[in-house]
Amino acid sequence: MKIAIIGATGHAGSAIFKEALKRGHEVTGYVRHPDKSVGILPPDADLIQQDAFTLTREQLTGYDAVIDAFATTVEQAYLHIDLADHLIHELRNTDKPRVIFILGAGSLKNGDHTLYDTLKKDPHAAAFINTPLNQFRELQLLRWTDNVNWLGISPSANFQPGPATAYVRGKDELLKDDSGKSVLNSDTLAVALLDELENPTIKQARFTARNA
Amino acid sequence: MKIAIIGATGHAGSAIFKEALKRGHEVTGYVRHPDKSVGILPPDADLIQQDAFTLTREQLTGYDAVIDAFATTVEQAYLHIDLADHLIHELRNTDKPRVIFILGAGSLKNGDHTLYDTLKKDPHAAAFINTPLNQFRELQLLRWTDNVNWLGISPSANFQPGPATAYVRGKDELLKDDSGKSVLNSDTLAVALLDELENPTIKQARFTARNA
Repeated sequence: MKIAIIGATGHAGSAIFKEALKRGHEVTGYVRHPDKSVGILPPDADLIQQDAFTLTREQLTGYDAVIDAFATTVEQAYLHIDLADHLIHELRNTDKPRVIFILGAGSLKNGDHTLYDTLKKDPHAAAFINTPLNQFRELQLLRWTDNVNWLGISPSANFQPGPATAYVRGKDELLKDDSGKSVLNSDTLAVALLDELENPTIKQARFTARNA
Repeated sequence: MKIAIIGATGHAGSAIFKEALKRGHEVTGYVRHPDKSVGILPPDADLIQQDAFTLTREQLTGYDAVIDAFATTVEQAYLHIDLADHLIHELRNTDKPRVIFILGAGSLKNGDHTLYDTLKKDPHAAAFINTPLNQFRELQLLRWTDNVNWLGISPSANFQPGPATAYVRGKDELLKDDSGKSVLNSDTLAVALLDELENPTIKQARFTARNA
């Protein structure tokens, strides 16, 4: 597959980039700061320095999959909404590429509530809540969208750097292991996502995963 | 004031254009098809032929007020969301211009429900419901936005061409007269909006009006 990754030098983006390369896909990273790739991506990684908000329909439709792994500051978390809508707008009434949005875990159901409802009660919520809030809104925007081939993936409550493990896959519920831990490694997310890309099982929906 | 109107040849846009001119404002219309203005706007109206999705922050911040009176087909009603987010994105972290969105009446509360809830039960809903649905979503997107100086205006249940009348103003409730009629003329909407622009009373909120 021809795969484009927005935010290819980030936590999730770089893990997906390497997993996709390993599986023999043709991967292009769209990055704001190519120098950030040193030590993170292979020296010969195909990187294009371009603001993702300038990506055009013509560029995007040249790929089989476009992965939005954009990351930003807490203060600018509204950019998650804006970039999602830019990509959606450019791709209205297309079926290719499949567009994948790396969401937060906050929108996952956790019993009667969402993880976001729990997070916002954290005494330090002011320092970070804007990010899960806007990623929740981003998912809402996706759910309004029925004419773009989108896919969302949410990690578990703890999304951490780490090697690929076996994984358990879920839909809209926060996943926990028998001891109540909800953890997903970045390389495990990459494996779960590439598995879904190579063998699509859902469309216009979000899934989640945890380390098994 | 310097006022820009997107969709200046439309039902609402043209009424606002003429009312603003009458009050001595400097008005520019952004239109896709300038030839549509013949007989609708004055022959010397200042019109710029430009796709509203290409309006830049630099252009937009040159105005005191930008009015999104964009209209489209039922099939492409998702463009209401996309254009709102384009304008919001370009104007993040600004206080000027004030950006005004002409919304539908569907999002107004009507007793325990919204007018949209009633409309979707109409036997002919399939032919039109996409428009109020997406304008409702557009309002949701605005309500997520706290760093742009936005204003929404919803007409009454029946929004019809017609001369300016006195008006009754409301917030989020559908307005009806004593006989239960909920009507707003296009020229009355223009008067109510220009009154609010000249003497701002609300910010980051939506109001509605009906013919008195």
